[in-house]
Amino acid sequence: MAKRLLSDHFLEDTEKMPYTILITSGPTREPLDPVRFLSNGSSGRMGAALSEAAISQGFAVTIVSGPVRVAYPPAAKVIEVETTQEMLDAARGEFVRADCVGVIGAAAPCDFRAASVSKQKIKKNADGRPLILELVETPDILASLATMKRPDQWIVGFALESEPHTGVGLENAQMKRQKKRCDLLVLNHPNAIGVDVTTVSLINACGEIIQELTSTKRTIAERIVQLMSR
Amino acid sequence: MAKRLLSDHFLEDTEKMPYTILITSGPTREPLDPVRFLSNGSSGRMGAALSEAAISQGFAVTIVSGPVRVAYPPAAKVIEVETTQEMLDAARGEFVRADCVGVIGAAAPCDFRAASVSKQKIKKNADGRPLILELVETPDILASLATMKRPDQWIVGFALESEPHTGVGLENAQMKRQKKRCDLLVLNHPNAIGVDVTTVSLINACGEIIQELTSTKRTIAERIVQLMSR
Repeated sequence: MAKRLLSDHFLEDTEKMPYTILITSGPTREPLDPVRFLSNGSSGRMGAALSEAAISQGFAVTIVSGPVRVAYPPAAKVIEVETTQEMLDAARGEFVRADCVGVIGAAAPCDFRAASVSKQKIKKNADGRPLILELVETPDILASLATMKRPDQWIVGFALESEPHTGVGLENAQMKRQKKRCDLLVLNHPNAIGVDVTTVSLINACGEIIQELTSTKRTIAERIVQLMSR
Repeated sequence: MAKRLLSDHFLEDTEKMPYTILITSGPTREPLDPVRFLSNGSSGRMGAALSEAAISQGFAVTIVSGPVRVAYPPAAKVIEVETTQEMLDAARGEFVRADCVGVIGAAAPCDFRAASVSKQKIKKNADGRPLILELVETPDILASLATMKRPDQWIVGFALESEPHTGVGLENAQMKRQKKRCDLLVLNHPNAIGVDVTTVSLINACGEIIQELTSTKRTIAERIVQLMSR
């Protein structure tokens, strides 16, 4: 699909072509060998809830998703990926489009990958010795999108902290907000993975907690889209 | 559920109580911290195909399954687990039952786990240094069941070798067959994960390749159950 130029943005008939929200969703997988991988239990449910909220508020939605069981709304365009690098590549390709007004980083990309991927299935050591694995960081998807963000675009990030309600958790979240240049950061707890009702803190671009919300992913999703489409 | 004694076996009215085949299926997950885990792409489709074949040949089926998307036959009893240790515990509990005639180890359990699981989400190193992870072996489910196997029970193992058609792949498979005391070993290729048509070698208790089969998982499953119910 040909990319359109920024200038096209102003030529669009917005009645014919709705603005698009880009949503990353689900986990990524980082292979150790042809069989094994690192991943996490992200279900893609928050991504699905955000997509539904965005569509019902009149946006087009593109989802870049890792492997999930969840059903995305049929009206959404879904790009399936496996690794964090693939998710980044796909997200960059979509974020650069003139009709893309913002990105919501609801995915839980693996932030570590094996320093080298074994071409053969890794064998157990014959004498049962431990296996030492060297992990390196994967690219930071939102921080990377932040470097190419246009003035007319916004970024919503998610932070998952083990201890979100302590000073440390909040401080970490603030560091993430700055690095990813988030207009809104959604801070939640590991218990958010795979469940439906959860507690989040919404932090604005100035670092202020503007709302604490204990609710279903659907209600939280609606609130996020509402905040960004004002 | 109360376990029944071996002697009960001979008291059963087999018309009322069919023999049960125990099937392990899907991947397991080994946590690194509250969010991340090691796993593999096993879909559970071979386990589902084996369950269908066993049920259609008149057996009851108990499936011990890791997290999968596949739909198991409604007539099967399904026990859901996450880690390899949980899969082993559940499988032992079922294998000891008097009506259990055999186990088919179609699961792809993680054979490594983190030496220590972090209670907190593991942070990136501030200076981008690699993360060193120490992995240790998980218990071998079939080898463990083999130590408690009754004379009236059989074990079918699966071996996944990167190079199944070379001498090395076959030799590794033979070692697995002996360690797990398999009456039948199904040797297949990493491309078996997540796809439907695959090539397997069937190896009997004496280490002889009795059949090579390129077919759907359904046909392979029917052949395996047929071989074991003769």
